[in-house]
Amino acid sequence: MRERLTIVKVGGAVVEDEAQLAQLLRDFSAIEGKKVLVHGGGRRATQIASQLGIESKMVNGRRITDAGMLRVVTMVYGGLVNKNLVARLQANGVNALGLTGADIDVIRSHKRPPVSFNAALQQEGGEKVTTIDYGFVGDVDRADGNMLSRLIEAGITPVMAPLTHDGQGNILNTNADTIASETARALAPFYDTTLIFSFEKKGVLRNPDDDDSVIPLITHDDFARYKADGTISGGMIPKIENALAAIDSGVGRVIITLATAIDGAHGTVIK
Amino acid sequence: MRERLTIVKVGGAVVEDEAQLAQLLRDFSAIEGKKVLVHGGGRRATQIASQLGIESKMVNGRRITDAGMLRVVTMVYGGLVNKNLVARLQANGVNALGLTGADIDVIRSHKRPPVSFNAALQQEGGEKVTTIDYGFVGDVDRADGNMLSRLIEAGITPVMAPLTHDGQGNILNTNADTIASETARALAPFYDTTLIFSFEKKGVLRNPDDDDSVIPLITHDDFARYKADGTISGGMIPKIENALAAIDSGVGRVIITLATAIDGAHGTVIK
Repeated sequence: MRERLTIVKVGGAVVEDEAQLAQLLRDFSAIEGKKVLVHGGGRRATQIASQLGIESKMVNGRRITDAGMLRVVTMVYGGLVNKNLVARLQANGVNALGLTGADIDVIRSHKRPPVSFNAALQQEGGEKVTTIDYGFVGDVDRADGNMLSRLIEAGITPVMAPLTHDGQGNILNTNADTIASETARALAPFYDTTLIFSFEKKGVLRNPDDDDSVIPLITHDDFARYKADGTISGGMIPKIENALAAIDSGVGRVIITLATAIDGAHGTVIK
Repeated sequence: MRERLTIVKVGGAVVEDEAQLAQLLRDFSAIEGKKVLVHGGGRRATQIASQLGIESKMVNGRRITDAGMLRVVTMVYGGLVNKNLVARLQANGVNALGLTGADIDVIRSHKRPPVSFNAALQQEGGEKVTTIDYGFVGDVDRADGNMLSRLIEAGITPVMAPLTHDGQGNILNTNADTIASETARALAPFYDTTLIFSFEKKGVLRNPDDDDSVIPLITHDDFARYKADGTISGGMIPKIENALAAIDSGVGRVIITLATAIDGAHGTVIK
């Protein structure tokens, strides 16, 4: 039987709320066995950018990263958020190591080419009139599961910021959910891997107005059905697609759950 | 014969000048054998702090780090400067890993207690009238040479930001020269260690108005003499004291030289 590994992805909203963050760090520190933390930090980046007079532009929930915004996310994700998480985990006895994709070349990506406006807005069914350049955004080429597992075997807990690099000297901004699933896929050959996406709801809800209507299990077949009948829509679609891609690559299970309940006892299991 | 290790400390001025930085990265990448880069970033921190409406206060060349400034240096040193250096070294084929003292607990420090105004200004001979609180500044307790050497043995080149942690969840601001000498001292038992302090002059100058009046060698005895006759004064005194402390702890040699000449062929050797 392979050893267990738990990868927890925590979003920016949790990282910025002290009570939620303290709870998350306690719960994460209490997870037995090998583990990895992946964090966002978008709200803090938006805040600091605004203080620096840089406007945040979003398309379909994704940030347009121009040169000024790249400097902000490099500071905020790689420095402010990452290093404070590392210091606080160390205080909890977790031997944390903060990583971007550039560090030890763990996640290599390429700059996303401009995409058609149509593709970017396909969920709204927009006409193809022009293209969108997301700027310094990296689409992942590969995560180095071999190097990550060597660190983990040395008793180290990687804490991963949503930044990658192109191998040519440039940092690129990469979605934290993507970092989490690519990391899980890269580590799946080494461990019995559980990927937990923590967020502000108890799980994937059958009825968006009822916080307790958590769907306990979603398979490929369930997803097709829920998508067809409109139960699952909007931003939850790419999240579950991401989760199912991880399952197809050998990740044991993906759990979507509340940030303050990452013990995995609740939430929606995707497998 | 022990294997050689070269530790290069580069200041903020070089990191912020693209031509000098490109040269430094080429030279650093070309250093054969095992190596470590330690960087500053003070000017960039001052700039970003100012854009955020945070005033930089300095006493004796040391930054007063209040809570707002701590956030700025955590962002700038740990994120902006560190991650760009790491990405650019990766592009040069150097397997760089960015570290603060919190990462894998490599450098532990304690918050500096308020010091008397007199002590803070002793070089100017000030009266003892009050105390100075440097704020979130960390005085180093220990650097973990064992962990650093394990990384280095795995083919990794640490890139160290001037940030440490107190083991209780707090990041602290620590002078980059101190990070460099503490790292050199911690690694001296493992390697034949050379510590290079790169800066804007060719070395320690006999005559401050003559850039070519480099003193080639300074020993303990030389230093006492140069200090007594006023040849060496001001900010160069703590730099050389730092260097001599490193020598006393087993570091092979310390070289003070131009940032664009870190091959060690020139500059002032301290041993």
